[in-house]
Amino acid sequence: MPATAPSEKAFIPFVSVENMMRLVHHIGIEAMLLQLTDAIEADFRRWPAFDKVPRLPSHSLEGVIELMPTSDGEIYGFKYVNGHPQNTAKGLQTVTAFGLLAQVSNGYPVLLSEMTLLTALRTAATSALAARYLAPKGARTMAVIGNGAQAEFQALAMRAVVGIDHVKLYDIDPKATEKARRNLESMGMTVTACTSAQAAIEGAEIITTCTADKQYATILTDNMVGAGVHINAIGGDCPGKTELHPDILKRADTFVEYPPQTRIEGEIQQMEPDYPVTELWQVINGDAPGRKDASQITLFDSVGFAIEDFSALRYVRDKIQGTDFFQKLDIIADPDDPRDLFGMVQRSK
Amino acid sequence: MPATAPSEKAFIPFVSVENMMRLVHHIGIEAMLLQLTDAIEADFRRWPAFDKVPRLPSHSLEGVIELMPTSDGEIYGFKYVNGHPQNTAKGLQTVTAFGLLAQVSNGYPVLLSEMTLLTALRTAATSALAARYLAPKGARTMAVIGNGAQAEFQALAMRAVVGIDHVKLYDIDPKATEKARRNLESMGMTVTACTSAQAAIEGAEIITTCTADKQYATILTDNMVGAGVHINAIGGDCPGKTELHPDILKRADTFVEYPPQTRIEGEIQQMEPDYPVTELWQVINGDAPGRKDASQITLFDSVGFAIEDFSALRYVRDKIQGTDFFQKLDIIADPDDPRDLFGMVQRSK
Repeated sequence: MPATAPSEKAFIPFVSVENMMRLVHHIGIEAMLLQLTDAIEADFRRWPAFDKVPRLPSHSLEGVIELMPTSDGEIYGFKYVNGHPQNTAKGLQTVTAFGLLAQVSNGYPVLLSEMTLLTALRTAATSALAARYLAPKGARTMAVIGNGAQAEFQALAMRAVVGIDHVKLYDIDPKATEKARRNLESMGMTVTACTSAQAAIEGAEIITTCTADKQYATILTDNMVGAGVHINAIGGDCPGKTELHPDILKRADTFVEYPPQTRIEGEIQQMEPDYPVTELWQVINGDAPGRKDASQITLFDSVGFAIEDFSALRYVRDKIQGTDFFQKLDIIADPDDPRDLFGMVQRSK
Repeated sequence: MPATAPSEKAFIPFVSVENMMRLVHHIGIEAMLLQLTDAIEADFRRWPAFDKVPRLPSHSLEGVIELMPTSDGEIYGFKYVNGHPQNTAKGLQTVTAFGLLAQVSNGYPVLLSEMTLLTALRTAATSALAARYLAPKGARTMAVIGNGAQAEFQALAMRAVVGIDHVKLYDIDPKATEKARRNLESMGMTVTACTSAQAAIEGAEIITTCTADKQYATILTDNMVGAGVHINAIGGDCPGKTELHPDILKRADTFVEYPPQTRIEGEIQQMEPDYPVTELWQVINGDAPGRKDASQITLFDSVGFAIEDFSALRYVRDKIQGTDFFQKLDIIADPDDPRDLFGMVQRSK
């Protein structure tokens, strides 16, 4: 080994998009969604152990780039993620992401991973976790309004975790609905393609809204939402971006991830600052009631929180142990004498 | 090409530690320090064009992990960096870092780079930039108190930018001084190894303090600092971490990068919130005076700001064009149909 070869400490495991796809197939997508749901649930149970801050956004006319850090005192994690609704028209992903875990005790990274796919998976898993506690018992049918990149993951997570086997799809673009129908039928789900949101909602116990426009939109109006349903609203996740008419929020009991972030970004940005919400982790912990009766409208106003990414990255870190689903990346300078960074450079000549 | 092969958009250039060292040797370390100084100066001139926030820290007993984002509206950049003073004793770097640039218009990353080395280079370049405007004219001798990983970079940047050719070294650990002496003599500098800070300071026109302890320390006391010197204080860069006795701050005119961050992290965390400071970019722009006379004590209270990393990353991005000093990293999922992320996964089976 030449004197300048980096030591083992200089390398961190990197999970590329290709390797993440291999990992998904290795585990099986629904098994992975179920395991991710359980991993997120376990971290939500120890919610007070985490450092929590609203994510740090950089807004532009076209979209937003965000950094989402958290730490449990032992491991630090963060995600880089963008949201650019107009990207689809340019042939690009609306959301791309990558994430990192590091050791709190020395600050050294221990995992770098793609998170475009992983975000899609963890978002669906978080929705399924909320539905596990909030959806009507025995729910079998879900409406999915907005049939973009997130739609299939939502449907499969809801099947794996709460037993949904029939999805009713609607999108303003029939081609998106057709794509989701094809994908979900290939996974053995019963799919009904609908030509209006109203039609999709009929008979659904869970209504998932996952549209991508960065604007105040009204995907659901008050008269469309009947007693007893669970609404899983995941598209309203940015200031100026909502999906539900405020009258729905007045009738529903609303559950959120981290209130200081949701009040800025979620559906409840339309409401007064004292609009009552329940934190999902408290329901999971048994500190707050979830669904109380069969006529209650429950709303999970999901915006995505850093702890979910942390859970997903830790899950991936565990799962790649002993596999070849990662590369080693030379991203940390590690001279023999840590004070001799300059000497390391000189000796590499 | 198989149907599942990622498109070009899926790959972003990654500069490893090894490739960063190759780039440094290709350009020459002092030429690179000079060019980085000019790149940072160019961005400081257009300071109002940048989004500016204090960095987002995650503090622990052992150290800190920080995210440092900024954007000029066209390019977004951020750095991940840790500071763990006890790492050296464990054989690890005190500071490790990596950084990223992305396109604001679509949120897609365009560069991922190691920044442990690049941070050392940009920190020295920023010090040299401040000295270009604040140090006494014709300065030839610099004291360097703290002879760890940053020391040599400081000395070489000061030679490249302001003409320092004699460095006087002091560290509480003589082995650190010996390491820096050896490295700097090999670069043709005149070096005096000293056994006290007082001895190192005698005759120096510039005093650089770059120690790493996370505590309130007094590397310089008031009586040690004579009229006319320029103090380049870079080790006090974290709440609870300072190097100068407050009496020095009362006699000096203090220049800073970004006041909201420096008042939390810099030497001036010891002073009242209204302690007067001048922003370096205003001096560079001609909006505020720099050094006024030969007896003035100028202090650059440097903590490191996101724009410096942005400048350094953009510089690297330019310099690797047409070279092989980078790898391509499959970190962005890029399905043919951007709404069909699920289909991309399925087709990769």
